[in-house]
Amino acid sequence: MKAIMKQTAAPGADYVDVDDPKPGPMDVVIEVKSAAICGTDIHIYDWTQYARERIKPPMIFGHEVCGDVVETGSRVETLSVGDRVAVETHIPCGTCFQCQTGNQHICEKMAIVGVHTDGVFSEYARIPAGCCWKLPKEYDPDLGAILEPIGVAVHGILEGEINGRSVAVFGCGPIGLFGIGAINALGASKIFALEPNPARLAMVPNFAPEAILIDPVNDDAVGIIKEATGGRGADVVIEISGAPAAARMAFAVLRLGGRVSLVGLPSEPVTLNTPTDIIYKEAKVFGTTGRRMWDTWWQVQGLLDSGKFDPMPAVTHRMGLAEIGKGIELARTGEAGKVLLYP
Amino acid sequence: MKAIMKQTAAPGADYVDVDDPKPGPMDVVIEVKSAAICGTDIHIYDWTQYARERIKPPMIFGHEVCGDVVETGSRVETLSVGDRVAVETHIPCGTCFQCQTGNQHICEKMAIVGVHTDGVFSEYARIPAGCCWKLPKEYDPDLGAILEPIGVAVHGILEGEINGRSVAVFGCGPIGLFGIGAINALGASKIFALEPNPARLAMVPNFAPEAILIDPVNDDAVGIIKEATGGRGADVVIEISGAPAAARMAFAVLRLGGRVSLVGLPSEPVTLNTPTDIIYKEAKVFGTTGRRMWDTWWQVQGLLDSGKFDPMPAVTHRMGLAEIGKGIELARTGEAGKVLLYP
Amino acid sequence: MKAIMKQTAAPGADYVDVDDPKPGPMDVVIEVKSAAICGTDIHIYDWTQYARERIKPPMIFGHEVCGDVVETGSRVETLSVGDRVAVETHIPCGTCFQCQTGNQHICEKMAIVGVHTDGVFSEYARIPAGCCWKLPKEYDPDLGAILEPIGVAVHGILEGEINGRSVAVFGCGPIGLFGIGAINALGASKIFALEPNPARLAMVPNFAPEAILIDPVNDDAVGIIKEATGGRGADVVIEISGAPAAARMAFAVLRLGGRVSLVGLPSEPVTLNTPTDIIYKEAKVFGTTGRRMWDTWWQVQGLLDSGKFDPMPAVTHRMGLAEIGKGIELARTGEAGKVLLYP
Amino acid sequence: MKAIMKQTAAPGADYVDVDDPKPGPMDVVIEVKSAAICGTDIHIYDWTQYARERIKPPMIFGHEVCGDVVETGSRVETLSVGDRVAVETHIPCGTCFQCQTGNQHICEKMAIVGVHTDGVFSEYARIPAGCCWKLPKEYDPDLGAILEPIGVAVHGILEGEINGRSVAVFGCGPIGLFGIGAINALGASKIFALEPNPARLAMVPNFAPEAILIDPVNDDAVGIIKEATGGRGADVVIEISGAPAAARMAFAVLRLGGRVSLVGLPSEPVTLNTPTDIIYKEAKVFGTTGRRMWDTWWQVQGLLDSGKFDPMPAVTHRMGLAEIGKGIELARTGEAGKVLLYP
Repeated sequence: MKAIMKQTAAPGADYVDVDDPKPGPMDVVIEVKSAAICGTDIHIYDWTQYARERIKPPMIFGHEVCGDVVETGSRVETLSVGDRVAVETHIPCGTCFQCQTGNQHICEKMAIVGVHTDGVFSEYARIPAGCCWKLPKEYDPDLGAILEPIGVAVHGILEGEINGRSVAVFGCGPIGLFGIGAINALGASKIFALEPNPARLAMVPNFAPEAILIDPVNDDAVGIIKEATGGRGADVVIEISGAPAAARMAFAVLRLGGRVSLVGLPSEPVTLNTPTDIIYKEAKVFGTTGRRMWDTWWQVQGLLDSGKFDPMPAVTHRMGLAEIGKGIELARTGEAGKVLLYP
Repeated sequence: MKAIMKQTAAPGADYVDVDDPKPGPMDVVIEVKSAAICGTDIHIYDWTQYARERIKPPMIFGHEVCGDVVETGSRVETLSVGDRVAVETHIPCGTCFQCQTGNQHICEKMAIVGVHTDGVFSEYARIPAGCCWKLPKEYDPDLGAILEPIGVAVHGILEGEINGRSVAVFGCGPIGLFGIGAINALGASKIFALEPNPARLAMVPNFAPEAILIDPVNDDAVGIIKEATGGRGADVVIEISGAPAAARMAFAVLRLGGRVSLVGLPSEPVTLNTPTDIIYKEAKVFGTTGRRMWDTWWQVQGLLDSGKFDPMPAVTHRMGLAEIGKGIELARTGEAGKVLLYP
Repeated sequence: MKAIMKQTAAPGADYVDVDDPKPGPMDVVIEVKSAAICGTDIHIYDWTQYARERIKPPMIFGHEVCGDVVETGSRVETLSVGDRVAVETHIPCGTCFQCQTGNQHICEKMAIVGVHTDGVFSEYARIPAGCCWKLPKEYDPDLGAILEPIGVAVHGILEGEINGRSVAVFGCGPIGLFGIGAINALGASKIFALEPNPARLAMVPNFAPEAILIDPVNDDAVGIIKEATGGRGADVVIEISGAPAAARMAFAVLRLGGRVSLVGLPSEPVTLNTPTDIIYKEAKVFGTTGRRMWDTWWQVQGLLDSGKFDPMPAVTHRMGLAEIGKGIELARTGEAGKVLLYP
Repeated sequence: MKAIMKQTAAPGADYVDVDDPKPGPMDVVIEVKSAAICGTDIHIYDWTQYARERIKPPMIFGHEVCGDVVETGSRVETLSVGDRVAVETHIPCGTCFQCQTGNQHICEKMAIVGVHTDGVFSEYARIPAGCCWKLPKEYDPDLGAILEPIGVAVHGILEGEINGRSVAVFGCGPIGLFGIGAINALGASKIFALEPNPARLAMVPNFAPEAILIDPVNDDAVGIIKEATGGRGADVVIEISGAPAAARMAFAVLRLGGRVSLVGLPSEPVTLNTPTDIIYKEAKVFGTTGRRMWDTWWQVQGLLDSGKFDPMPAVTHRMGLAEIGKGIELARTGEAGKVLLYP
């Protein structure tokens, strides 16, 4: 089959022929219908420190995917050939303390599809049956491919309540846009979208028509948010950008007793003035990663079923698998929203 | 001034002249701009057992109100003449365990405006300053008058989360309609409205266009709700009708591990099969009464500010104070939604 | 092997020879070291309506057990021959909504060891590997055999917080005693133990030396509890007795805004005055069943590790498997605490 | 009367004669029976940056106190002459969003006794009636004087559950010791006490006999805690020391999904590696300050009533008010636990 392969420990990737995957006893093989480029894929393509610490070439990468089951392992009982599925990227061990107490998403021995195992930028992919989220047969594969990143946003958002609260979102890349759409559907009273890239900020109204758009570099974010919240600051802050400056500003725009979800991953340490940022303010800070298995998937499905949240406007580019380099470039620069790849 | 007075321990009420109220040191006097008829007022008018146990004629009743401050007591520092206010009906003592721990709304020594003190069906009314919720000067008095019953619904709803859940509401009188509108704004994935009165059920789409309408007497409520929820039942049930049959059915339509908020007040005991209704099902049952002070008021304001919830379609009739008898009749029969009275 | 068999649809049970069990691919076979009699076993022995609706003779019953693995199924990877285990009685399907969202203990398709499958009152027993809780090799088998019922109590208790609260426990059979010991270890400020059987009540001080002992039939339970709580009532009530009268009294002794966990299973419907019992009181009522998998097991282990909770004084009788009839009789009359059986 | 006065903007304080205080309408005057030195008092005495930013000499400082009411303001209805009281240091405005939603302890316009108003290191002190916690007449004044700092610890601890969890406490000064005693009473499964000062660490067994004592400078804290928790790390970390190094280590010893309460105030910014410390770990971080009003006071009373928590061993020194300099010195060096002053 054709696949995008990271062949060597160096930047770039190749479109090559490889053997078709065979399922292990608890795996399925899916035919990839639609796959999406994630920030992690950019790290792998660019061979950043993040990638160098985790990736062992040669391997196929990519993990956001929707496909149809074409083969099932000998012990798989929950899926059949022909089933359409989306994929949970995280492969929990199933036996550790976290897995035993409803927190498989922070398994002590976590593996990740497309990082620790071969990924999905290929015609076919081997996936643990336990990581498949079954979809109706006619489900839009493009929507199926982005359920996983929608889940990243929704998990961060729903670590606390949104209902009727004012919410500031830092970062309006695809996950930020998904988050803003979800927050809008969940009945936030006010939404603040903070993003220095004007092209990304301009996409926000597709997800929350009444969101207040803020350029955190050139606007007075703290002043704007305080004025719009009776001087108090935002009830909830969702930090998705990963920028250290945003992590600090997250606390400055937060009201006393408010909640911050940290979702984006800063590439360098963040210095906080904990007395004023957290302690006197009684901030509640939640680190969130991945998606709760499977609570978040059900929540995402509930949101989509409600008819109040349409994530598709975040998809701005679609191309063939062979054009991965172009897709990575579009995603890296922030010119694109979500980029989909088709085998 | 003119007022509706319960003069004797018997059905009915009179439109009479009484002395203008004077504020105590911690009170204000408001000029009533708009008042609304509540179920409690029907009890008082009809002189039911509920009323006989609580009301000591002669007294003015009515408690849902918006008005403008015309006089302030000697120690009032938080309000000024000319301020427009809505009124929290519950008068907490401020010193008991509940009041000391954020639960003034279930004060151990609660008094209620229009039940234990003179009410608001009058040109002017004396109100504890601590029970006033200050509004912008030009706030619609009709909206101000119904914030209190909106709060009853919102408090019941927000004892747990709504975000993306399927929700069944029993009872589509005014509080049920407010609840359905709030649930819709809070991002429920599916809404079921259950009400035997067709006139009331017909009002539901004004509050949630996609709600599934169910006549619990003639329709197979359990079957409809289970079918629409993948066989599981509703995630959340809000029981607002007060009908004992509804309280029982609330548990039948609930999914395993779901939440029931009991808001409506049955007039007779309710017999439950607790093993199947609650224990094996791990139901979470919350009795709710009144509004959290002042959390619920802030939540209501947040909902209204979000632009996603318009409670005004529940107001179906407006009339002069002297027409109280007609208003009570309309409300009692369920022909009306909310009935507003103007002095 | 020898086993206690329910051979026919009639009261009683027989001590008979049966074939040794063989494991399915995902099962283990354990050698039973210690087993305990549960209320369910009394139902089965006595052939009550509960049993008639669930049990299909011939079958071995019993489910509270500690044993050593002597054989493992072909796909079992988490257990080895020689491992000592306690057994989670509930066998969840693993794929339903509840199982997918951290609530396997209320699986939509639950099976129960010793009810839907052959049980443990036998020399050997087949158990799904996924229902085994691994213990250290030298773990006391008698303690291992009662971890499951301790879990029933702890799950009911920890549906909310205990820390520093006043707690009333209805029912001082073995599960009530375990609960009282756990509540004592969890730092309750006051403990009320309610039980009409003087022999059972007399065992309470072994678990909470300063608990206030109340005979709910002859004492003024409401008066005693209110006096000891500043007139407010208990912060938390754990209803373990299953007596309908206790379920009603549970709400009478509860303070405003308090929490009730319903654990015991009434054999007839319970009539509640929901306005005064639940709604005006803003009671929070939680039905609980079984044990959270595996949160409760970890909590039980934490409690035992803390050294502040010793459940063993609840074990009053030990006998051979063949003496099941005598053991059932002791447990049924309330003369015994926990009765252990040895093959 | 005699009082300790900060007379000038410089280190030190004087024992001087001043006029007796007179109550405002909503105040009481108390006769000080016992007062305690707090870290804030050391800042004021030493005239650190913290003090220079907040304190306007001349003023009396000190705020941890127990006393008897000797005079009541004209509008005070909740207290009488002769009442013994402890004092909540925080004076909330009563009208802001926080005060209206059960969070008076993080009032938007907070004032603090002994910082923004004259304090209690004097024979008599003026206190807002609303800040008094009434005690039984014969209550030990020394215990009354330390309820406030006990509350600081208990508030931090009870932002989440303790029941059966492993808990690490950084900092074993008086508040750390109170916290350890409370955690012990609340049923922690394991307690780790971390403190570089051997004299302080040696006091820990008085509060939790089985606590594991760790010198975070010379011991391998991470290794010790991981080994004692099955390799996972502590379920809960309470950071009371205020040392930046401790704030960082707090996250290193925390298990995946664990909870950190930040109570101690670092004097310099803290640099965190948020991906590993918080995000991938899904840490839940709560800043806590002061005491919930009055939830924490009730919790403290519940703990003391339970008989499982005795805070008095933290009191190591008692002296006359005039010896303030010596008391400050003992507290500053960590040689003392809690130092009490008597007028």
